[in-house]
Amino acid sequence: MKLYDCETAPSPRRVRIFLAEKGLTIPTLQVDLLNGEQFTPAFRALNPACTVPVLELDDGVTITDILSICRYFEELYPDPPLMGQSAKERAVIGSWLSRIEWDGFNGAMDAFRNSAPGLRKRALPGLESYEQIPELAQRGRARVQHFFAWIDARLADSEFICGPKFTIADISGMVAIDFVGRAKLKPPEHMVHLYRWHAAVSARPSSKS
Amino acid sequence: MKLYDCETAPSPRRVRIFLAEKGLTIPTLQVDLLNGEQFTPAFRALNPACTVPVLELDDGVTITDILSICRYFEELYPDPPLMGQSAKERAVIGSWLSRIEWDGFNGAMDAFRNSAPGLRKRALPGLESYEQIPELAQRGRARVQHFFAWIDARLADSEFICGPKFTIADISGMVAIDFVGRAKLKPPEHMVHLYRWHAAVSARPSSKS
Repeated sequence: MKLYDCETAPSPRRVRIFLAEKGLTIPTLQVDLLNGEQFTPAFRALNPACTVPVLELDDGVTITDILSICRYFEELYPDPPLMGQSAKERAVIGSWLSRIEWDGFNGAMDAFRNSAPGLRKRALPGLESYEQIPELAQRGRARVQHFFAWIDARLADSEFICGPKFTIADISGMVAIDFVGRAKLKPPEHMVHLYRWHAAVSARPSSKS
Repeated sequence: MKLYDCETAPSPRRVRIFLAEKGLTIPTLQVDLLNGEQFTPAFRALNPACTVPVLELDDGVTITDILSICRYFEELYPDPPLMGQSAKERAVIGSWLSRIEWDGFNGAMDAFRNSAPGLRKRALPGLESYEQIPELAQRGRARVQHFFAWIDARLADSEFICGPKFTIADISGMVAIDFVGRAKLKPPEHMVHLYRWHAAVSARPSSKS
């Protein structure tokens, strides 16, 4: 199998950290997003959505969704478990992941892509060109503040996002927090629980992936 | 367990159809979204995101993400399989689901919630109030057209979205197509593959759920 990656992008970083936590090394190709390699016919044949990460299996089947790539590795290599060890644990972790996606990643994406000068007409990833919408950048910033608030409140009661164990939700949460920095946003300093957790997860060797 | 539902909403419809395909009947409570029951303290304690569906387990644990609710039932009641029977099948289905979410549900949501007169200041679900953004409604309509196009192209080669078998991706795809009707959008008539598939999945008794 082969992983199509881009070292500077937040989405594939979630997979890279996941693999590092599993102790797995997968043959990896870098896709030059800055120079538009994701729009070439060769890459579009792999993933019409023109995004990374993509996992290409040996039979040519491609997996283009971040969480599906992680779940595939979790099923093949269950130890250490990062996505839950029972149907209930998996469902609870999935619910937290969905909340992180909702106002963490979506808010950060809206804030960043609708304001970065280098992303004019590129307000969404993919082949289609979409103009930036300044009100959407503003709404994204508001959503990110909401994300900071609930994650801080959650971490007041819990060592990690899903409880006493490190899970994929911590990987997603950390990458989301780091990603919002690109939109020049950071959690308010009084959010001590968020900062305690962020320092702990960032200190894991996997976070350098 | 208990399912918090709203008969008129597209998101819980995905779970209702999934349960009907499994032949499962779960005790269900209707949440009155039109009159704001999702914002009451009692409901917010169940799901701070103020959305349905929510699955509440007997020990009080809540699952608030649609696909996680479905996966929970899939694990408990594997027959008939709707989410794949191998790690690879599950990952491929997950990738199609993610594409349907991306420009199908997100596009439809942006188109509908940013233009419906009854949803002023409610451009996103949840407790926070967000103003409608007319450019976002327009962008949503463009994304939905893109969704129509790729799903029609996919169904030219495939009986169902993920291949020869009916899966959860067909449920999500059908609900997305029906949902965009609320934004007064429908697939162009020349998309015969999309219409053939939509008629077939709509003819299943589960679609009335």
